[in-house]
Amino acid sequence: MLKIPMNEIASRIVALQFLLVKNGVDAAIIRQNADLYYFTGTVQDGHLVVPASGQPVFLVKRDVVRAEEQSPLRPVVPLKSLKDLAPAVFDACGGASPGKIGLELDVLPANIFFYYDEKIFPRQQVVDVSGWIRQVRMIKSPWEIEMMRKAEAISRQVADAVPGLLREGMTELELSIELESVARRAGHLGMLRFRAFNMEMYFGHILSGAEAAVSSYIDAPTGGEGPSPAFGQGSSEKKIRAGEIVSVDIMVNYHGYLNDQTRNYCIGPPPPELRDAYGFVREIHGRFKKLARPGTVTGELYEEVWQWVKETRWADFFMGSGDTRVSFIGHGLGLEVDEFPFIAQGHKVVLQEGMTLAFEPKFIIPGVGITGLENTYLVTAMGLESLNTAGEELMIL
Amino acid sequence: MLKIPMNEIASRIVALQFLLVKNGVDAAIIRQNADLYYFTGTVQDGHLVVPASGQPVFLVKRDVVRAEEQSPLRPVVPLKSLKDLAPAVFDACGGASPGKIGLELDVLPANIFFYYDEKIFPRQQVVDVSGWIRQVRMIKSPWEIEMMRKAEAISRQVADAVPGLLREGMTELELSIELESVARRAGHLGMLRFRAFNMEMYFGHILSGAEAAVSSYIDAPTGGEGPSPAFGQGSSEKKIRAGEIVSVDIMVNYHGYLNDQTRNYCIGPPPPELRDAYGFVREIHGRFKKLARPGTVTGELYEEVWQWVKETRWADFFMGSGDTRVSFIGHGLGLEVDEFPFIAQGHKVVLQEGMTLAFEPKFIIPGVGITGLENTYLVTAMGLESLNTAGEELMIL
Repeated sequence: MLKIPMNEIASRIVALQFLLVKNGVDAAIIRQNADLYYFTGTVQDGHLVVPASGQPVFLVKRDVVRAEEQSPLRPVVPLKSLKDLAPAVFDACGGASPGKIGLELDVLPANIFFYYDEKIFPRQQVVDVSGWIRQVRMIKSPWEIEMMRKAEAISRQVADAVPGLLREGMTELELSIELESVARRAGHLGMLRFRAFNMEMYFGHILSGAEAAVSSYIDAPTGGEGPSPAFGQGSSEKKIRAGEIVSVDIMVNYHGYLNDQTRNYCIGPPPPELRDAYGFVREIHGRFKKLARPGTVTGELYEEVWQWVKETRWADFFMGSGDTRVSFIGHGLGLEVDEFPFIAQGHKVVLQEGMTLAFEPKFIIPGVGITGLENTYLVTAMGLESLNTAGEELMIL
Repeated sequence: MLKIPMNEIASRIVALQFLLVKNGVDAAIIRQNADLYYFTGTVQDGHLVVPASGQPVFLVKRDVVRAEEQSPLRPVVPLKSLKDLAPAVFDACGGASPGKIGLELDVLPANIFFYYDEKIFPRQQVVDVSGWIRQVRMIKSPWEIEMMRKAEAISRQVADAVPGLLREGMTELELSIELESVARRAGHLGMLRFRAFNMEMYFGHILSGAEAAVSSYIDAPTGGEGPSPAFGQGSSEKKIRAGEIVSVDIMVNYHGYLNDQTRNYCIGPPPPELRDAYGFVREIHGRFKKLARPGTVTGELYEEVWQWVKETRWADFFMGSGDTRVSFIGHGLGLEVDEFPFIAQGHKVVLQEGMTLAFEPKFIIPGVGITGLENTYLVTAMGLESLNTAGEELMIL
């Protein structure tokens, strides 16, 4: 079974400790599954205590044995009761009573925060460390990039499988179920982790025809009718017809690491409007790959792309239409779908080598359909390198 | 497309309003996906404002059109900015400035709570209404029970498919992927919603042999190695051998409503120890169905079942072993996997007609394997009625 190497874990913890020291926080306590996996190499019911300096301690309720097997971190200490948490944190801080404790306040539910704040650390100031955690996680190591390339190999298999599976008259859901199976057999874990409240997804958005141009509660440029009001996004029972763009937007998970990919297919000739818009989407990618170099600012990149779009006849349909437009064109990803950086209005993050982001310029034209291309990109000194290797042409079947 | 009927929505809101009045809360603001679906009939990026008396208002950022199509509630009001939230809430409260506003503090992240508490409602007291929401949701209407029966029809198809799909030498993951496909084609939405922080699942736990007896971070009697340290629960690459119990524990979702089912299979004769333990598991179900009548108390039911178990040679292996034992034998379910009531130590909920719960006595015997039977039950005046119709015998293939 895969193990995250010790040097990975060590450098991640050192990066977080640097930010703790810089911001005067005595210790961070990490609870959330994706963060635990990142900093320990395993997902257990546990608390990882990272003091600003010195050795971290992994306190585990369940399962201690598995934590020891999967995580290179030591010590792993059984935590039978939350009563034992504060003393363990104080110990990790060198025995002194710390003044400032950091928690992941962007994901910890309010009631759990109250319990930590009032019952466990009544004399400490509890602050939010989630921004710094996300900052550390934003820069991927070569090992992580290798994992993301392996995730891409799954996406590639899905893209390659579409021509053999797509048939006129099948429903979007039928195609989606077949493609899910391909992905799962190729190693896709199934689970997709989001950081933001209420965000959820199942495999992706396989959408077709004019009906695809419907937005949803999900903060994504495409929504889709979905299979139910209980889950109103993604594929529905709609039948796929010839002459429709079929947008296959998938998210796959290889040992926690994600790949996000959108490709377009059509049985027979596509609608000229969407074919032309897709040609422009490819042009956007070509220009953006050169533009988005280390040192550029995410909000400025966003404005620049919008300048290109405003000169076309599709400006009203970029990233949604009307009130349903989303405020980003790309999003970081790694262990979660919604990592830093966002290529979004007003954002001030400076691109650095080692960042990864899904760039997804898309046009949503009511009454006509949707088209877009999405790759997961790595920021390199030379600009963006696409991790996605599947052909980018609009594939006519 | 399915719509939740108006009379359903109306009676749910009245039930919540009763509890708001009783507890002196002026209005509840509902944000979380499962709660929104329950009280509005749709999942949108919205705020449902339920005043203690008078008409609720559904404020929607995205998608307003879909909210109006899917929800029978009126008015649906576009909410462009959170600045407009407080005035809308005050309006819904009859124009008066309310003193106490209720939020779902068990699921709302701390940072979002701070924003509501400090920026939007600085002069109101913000209290937790999640307990009352869960109390209302705990009692299922005949319409909801009908939905849960339809979910069961999917589980039944999965159970019926196992004998045709299970082959010696296939991996747990291969079987799981095949069964997922069966469930998805039969209408399973895929997504599974949990209420508790960090809880997550993908389809279920298909586990086999001695290796199955490993616990995980998930608060469930069975864990399983899982496909990765990134997702250490459920099926793994382990090959299924003859003479092993294969435990097929699945969770399916029909238009939001869940069914939870565990059935046991074996290629050839099963290990005698597990066969005998499974016989006792069936006996527990038989006794529990009669015992768990309206008026009984969940914590007392828990103790009673434990009394039965303590008289057997398997007491050390019930619901886990050693430190990894879970503290419940059953859990409510409906739109979420972890609803009220829990058949758990010290719980004081009194069973009522219309409650639904997954009852899952299981033995986890290290070095030997696992066995258990799980049905989703409805509490009726006569005791428990199983919604699950798949045969309960240990199926020898």
